[in-house]
Amino acid sequence: MSFDVPQEEFEQAAERLLHWISDYLENSQKYPVLHRVEPGQIRAALGEACPDQGTPLEQLLDEFEKVMVPGLTHWNHPRFFAYFGISASAPGVLADFLSSALNQQAMLWRTSPAATETEQATVGWLRDLMGLPSTFDGVIYDTASVSTLHALACARDRSIPGFRTKGFQGKTPVVYCSDQTHNSIDKAIIMLGVGLEYLRKIPTDENFAMRPEALREAVRRDLKAGLTPCAVVATVGTTSTTAVDPVAAIADICEEYKLWLHVDAAYGGSTALLEECRPYFDGCDRIQSLVINPHKWLFTPFDLSVLYVADMDVLKETFSLVAEYLKTSDDQVHNLMDTGVQLGRRFRSLKLWMIMRYFGAEGLRERVRRHLQLARQFASWIDKHPDYERLAPVLMSVVCFRYRPAGATEEQVEALNFRLMEELNAEGTLFLSQTRLRGTFTLRLAIGNLRTTEAHVAEAWEQIQKLSRR
Amino acid sequence: MSFDVPQEEFEQAAERLLHWISDYLENSQKYPVLHRVEPGQIRAALGEACPDQGTPLEQLLDEFEKVMVPGLTHWNHPRFFAYFGISASAPGVLADFLSSALNQQAMLWRTSPAATETEQATVGWLRDLMGLPSTFDGVIYDTASVSTLHALACARDRSIPGFRTKGFQGKTPVVYCSDQTHNSIDKAIIMLGVGLEYLRKIPTDENFAMRPEALREAVRRDLKAGLTPCAVVATVGTTSTTAVDPVAAIADICEEYKLWLHVDAAYGGSTALLEECRPYFDGCDRIQSLVINPHKWLFTPFDLSVLYVADMDVLKETFSLVAEYLKTSDDQVHNLMDTGVQLGRRFRSLKLWMIMRYFGAEGLRERVRRHLQLARQFASWIDKHPDYERLAPVLMSVVCFRYRPAGATEEQVEALNFRLMEELNAEGTLFLSQTRLRGTFTLRLAIGNLRTTEAHVAEAWEQIQKLSRR
Repeated sequence: MSFDVPQEEFEQAAERLLHWISDYLENSQKYPVLHRVEPGQIRAALGEACPDQGTPLEQLLDEFEKVMVPGLTHWNHPRFFAYFGISASAPGVLADFLSSALNQQAMLWRTSPAATETEQATVGWLRDLMGLPSTFDGVIYDTASVSTLHALACARDRSIPGFRTKGFQGKTPVVYCSDQTHNSIDKAIIMLGVGLEYLRKIPTDENFAMRPEALREAVRRDLKAGLTPCAVVATVGTTSTTAVDPVAAIADICEEYKLWLHVDAAYGGSTALLEECRPYFDGCDRIQSLVINPHKWLFTPFDLSVLYVADMDVLKETFSLVAEYLKTSDDQVHNLMDTGVQLGRRFRSLKLWMIMRYFGAEGLRERVRRHLQLARQFASWIDKHPDYERLAPVLMSVVCFRYRPAGATEEQVEALNFRLMEELNAEGTLFLSQTRLRGTFTLRLAIGNLRTTEAHVAEAWEQIQKLSRR
Repeated sequence: MSFDVPQEEFEQAAERLLHWISDYLENSQKYPVLHRVEPGQIRAALGEACPDQGTPLEQLLDEFEKVMVPGLTHWNHPRFFAYFGISASAPGVLADFLSSALNQQAMLWRTSPAATETEQATVGWLRDLMGLPSTFDGVIYDTASVSTLHALACARDRSIPGFRTKGFQGKTPVVYCSDQTHNSIDKAIIMLGVGLEYLRKIPTDENFAMRPEALREAVRRDLKAGLTPCAVVATVGTTSTTAVDPVAAIADICEEYKLWLHVDAAYGGSTALLEECRPYFDGCDRIQSLVINPHKWLFTPFDLSVLYVADMDVLKETFSLVAEYLKTSDDQVHNLMDTGVQLGRRFRSLKLWMIMRYFGAEGLRERVRRHLQLARQFASWIDKHPDYERLAPVLMSVVCFRYRPAGATEEQVEALNFRLMEELNAEGTLFLSQTRLRGTFTLRLAIGNLRTTEAHVAEAWEQIQKLSRR
């Protein structure tokens, strides 16, 4: 009996996969961007039960191609313009392949010095490229939702003495964010037990940025009511429009009222690599934490999110707990398990290392800068065309717009744009998503894929015009 | 400018990696199990800053081998006997390679029908193989810590009306587990804001299993004190000794007092595949949730944890929140984002599918059964030798023991075993870890790697005896 796959079978399957993946990365545009299946179709094809007998890898790869590929929505496609454009770059894919084989669990330094220290090194590199203070420390989690959850847990715990042991003790912490903030904040509030009623959505200005004076007013009101304001989440690059909250002005208020300031730069953080976008981050030297997701706009295969904290000790004080079976005789080492809820940690930093080193800092900058240019290019086409309307400033690589032919009523425009999006996506050349801005149905074109060129954006624009006319 | 790696360079690097990984999976025993580096060594070798210019993949793979490999602790080594033995099986590694290239984000059904439905199919298969009720639904997270966190969030929210909106409202929920429970429960309590004071560690019997009568007493006491008992965590396969809490007796109490019963079978869950171990799970048809980690003992590369819930609606009621930018026109589909804090989800189920199909249900059973036999074999050697002492029953694949030569005092025995462990691990043939049982320093030999044979266990036993005598 062979306990794992015989070496020859493994190598044959890996060889086949390597060529499939190579072709996929190079030519994913041959697929329609959106899946081509009906709900339930894949599940039915996979069958009701796990067969008793095994199946050779060769046959499983056939099944994958036949059953699953039509059910993929191709996030790695150069005309994927929905949500945020992302990429699994080739260096990241290779690093992840290696990481899976190594199967490191970096809970303790000793259980993977390589994963622990590569994480420390790469998050340090990234911090410096972003111009964050050199005193900030970083930790890698899976998603921004989890990064933000940890940041707000620290904020909550710090605001109520004895929290870790005694809980809320009748206190009511309050968290503030803008009405444009990502709903991972709401989910963190649910998990932390704060109560959604105590998450204040501060109104935004005409550019969808938080109004600091409204924040100050809300904090004052809550203090007066006997509540415990504890944290503010500012966003640099909101999901709907990539708006930028005024971090410095918000930091003033946070300092005055001793509030934890967390910056959600999950998407927008990559622009901090560019000198010309650095002003978006003014004030980030006075915050307590910031999240950036290299799996969004730094070409890293999902998942890899980095949380930076101004004081790593606070994170450790909140989460560190050393069980008997986890004690070691290693002194003075950084044990990743002390930095959060998850005990085991995959060797995620290997992909960040491979990507940063392969492209180099200058290569990363060039690629992010190119996406900004493509977005401005698309926005200029929208702006020049009388039948289209741009609905938000283009600060990063997302363009918010709608089709608005002369003479159509507001109601007709709403219906037209919804139908336009559905038909565009069904047709398969591109994939777009939507949002609502001040109640208006808005199309979003998000650029972020490594392989997206001006030609892809131009094709999208052609297609949008063609279907609009129909 | 090439935006990603040129295809030829990618294929060459992938080819090299494929052979490296093939050799690694087949021959990882050529490495010392524990890393060979000093703290700070790898970080220093990686350098202070990300270079501006990029580096070819070939050179990065050289650097990986030179700098990082000595800093790996080889979890995939057949003589890794510490914590829990795990395996990145070859089918799982290949599936993860594919998953990284596909870069699916299964937040919505439409953003990856393949990942969404493969998850539904495989967690259904696994549930049936484990003999859990067919009404249970499952969801995949990264780690057991996160699975348990979600389960206890549901329990907490259900125990206090209006919790999601209003929070604790002065109520004090209480959670119960045994004094042998994994500290992921403590971490969940921290995150959920319950307060560690309200996590009751119920005493265990001579087999390290929770004493139900002590649980009942604790619940009564808390009710009397005006607190709000809300959940019990029972463990099937504790971390220290693989003890099994009496789930059925605990379920009686939970039904009486309307408490959420969560079962931590992160490691032990794999034994539910075996008819002969099914009694460990008696009562699991009367629980609210259970976690099993295929990345522990089902040959799945880290990370993949499955949470089963008796009522998926409760999980969705706790966590579902649909932002405007996430609305779709797909009706009646299962959107994974509704099942927890994380919005994005990697295509983890691909590896579970590949592993279950490659080995088949019977193949999985044989392999788990073989580990149980190896553990019994090792235990029998310990039991027969007058200088060694077994310190816990062997229910699964972990053996707790110590060296206890005739005439040594208790103090000497403690010191001897600590030194024995340190020297064994430093020597590199095997890697063991420890725990404390009723205060006694205890060595643990944990078997779970796919490629571990009787010869590897025999080598470990030889080595233990050799170093003990020294």
